[in-house]
Amino acid sequence: MSNSPIVTAAMLAIGDELLSGRTKDKNIGHLADVLTLAGIDLKEVRIVADEEEAIVEALNALRQRHDYVFTSGGIGPTHDDITADAVSKAFGLPCIHDPEAMRLLGDMYARREMEFTEARQRMARMPEGARHIPNPVSTAPGFIVENVHVMAGVPQVFQAMLDNVLPQLRTGSKMLSRALPCPFGEGDIGSPLAAIQKAHPATSIGSYPKYDGARFSTEIVVRARDDHDLDAAAEAVQEMILALQERRQPTNFSADA
Amino acid sequence: MSNSPIVTAAMLAIGDELLSGRTKDKNIGHLADVLTLAGIDLKEVRIVADEEEAIVEALNALRQRHDYVFTSGGIGPTHDDITADAVSKAFGLPCIHDPEAMRLLGDMYARREMEFTEARQRMARMPEGARHIPNPVSTAPGFIVENVHVMAGVPQVFQAMLDNVLPQLRTGSKMLSRALPCPFGEGDIGSPLAAIQKAHPATSIGSYPKYDGARFSTEIVVRARDDHDLDAAAEAVQEMILALQERRQPTNFSADA
Repeated sequence: MSNSPIVTAAMLAIGDELLSGRTKDKNIGHLADVLTLAGIDLKEVRIVADEEEAIVEALNALRQRHDYVFTSGGIGPTHDDITADAVSKAFGLPCIHDPEAMRLLGDMYARREMEFTEARQRMARMPEGARHIPNPVSTAPGFIVENVHVMAGVPQVFQAMLDNVLPQLRTGSKMLSRALPCPFGEGDIGSPLAAIQKAHPATSIGSYPKYDGARFSTEIVVRARDDHDLDAAAEAVQEMILALQERRQPTNFSADA
Repeated sequence: MSNSPIVTAAMLAIGDELLSGRTKDKNIGHLADVLTLAGIDLKEVRIVADEEEAIVEALNALRQRHDYVFTSGGIGPTHDDITADAVSKAFGLPCIHDPEAMRLLGDMYARREMEFTEARQRMARMPEGARHIPNPVSTAPGFIVENVHVMAGVPQVFQAMLDNVLPQLRTGSKMLSRALPCPFGEGDIGSPLAAIQKAHPATSIGSYPKYDGARFSTEIVVRARDDHDLDAAAEAVQEMILALQERRQPTNFSADA
């Protein structure tokens, strides 16, 4: 396991509504959870507006640095859905009405006796040669160009598309993690924890302060790709917590942000 | 109002825990809400890991493009809190134990008869010459260098710091908005809505599909900096919805993602 390659990913969330506060993103956290479990390291996320230049620039930066990029948003039927155009531009490909997507959507609207409007036909647009990401929720497919996976912004559709994409992804050695609740604030544990990190260089030890309105406590998270490394560091952290508890009661002090 | 300048901002959220899925970010949406109300346009958000190079690069990109940058996370007392170092590096400034922050924290720990540990002293570190952002929750200040506002990751502290910073910010003409619930899916409204957008170029009209597990509906949001522009476009959208309703009952069709 510990010799497996590291696979990295980035996410590009697209939409004015995420930047105005009108919509609170739910896809970033979901993608982070799913990729972490799969053994793919999400390394960077960007949120940009529905502006072609911003999308193209962010996409070109991210796709060159990471094994995979996942985008959310902007692939619906309305005029502000410009992701297909922007992705095409980023790759220097023509943006076409994909014949297979036109057939899928056309059949579906025909079955339902609904007009396959020009707006609805927009949902068949993608860079020429793109592969489809099936959409079991609402038919209109996402698409894949090279390492970029273009998915819907509606969380239920984003999640369904991700489920369809995931089995095709190359995964690396999983980042294992263990969370250790700690009743002390970060100010109490900072120095001994830094020493433990130094003694366990194959692990990454993080501490996350929690504030309940009156007191801080900490969640200490040990991460490693090898389970022996993980065990050793987690044991050292646990010993540190016990030693601090023997010395004194937790302060839970509100100044240790 | 409509002649006021446009003021833009970016956010840089820092922390491995946001990218692993362990922590679901709450600060981006809050900042978006607060800036939008204040008349500052949040244009871009990035989330990066606790890695100096990634923080420095993102910060240098964002601070040159936007009037303001707000960061969250990485200013606590533990070894993985490296934001002060990274911000110092980005500005080419020495990272020092700020004398005033040392005094504030030292006094506070002395009052509470707690040891002012080396870890706790880390919370006084910032680029030389930085201005403080007061922290009414847990004392350790955030800081400002030029247009960059460095704030805590714990939401309660982030929010308190933002409240303290906001009155000092230059604000632009507010982006006004009106949301119009629409019982039709985007496939029904796409073409007429595009025509309305074209006829009202001073506005930005977005449509946000909602999916309740069985049906799609849409929220149409009209945005403009001038209230007359806003009224005119919103009226046109409302007329479009009424005209569609007269033609037929909403389909609420599950294919109109």
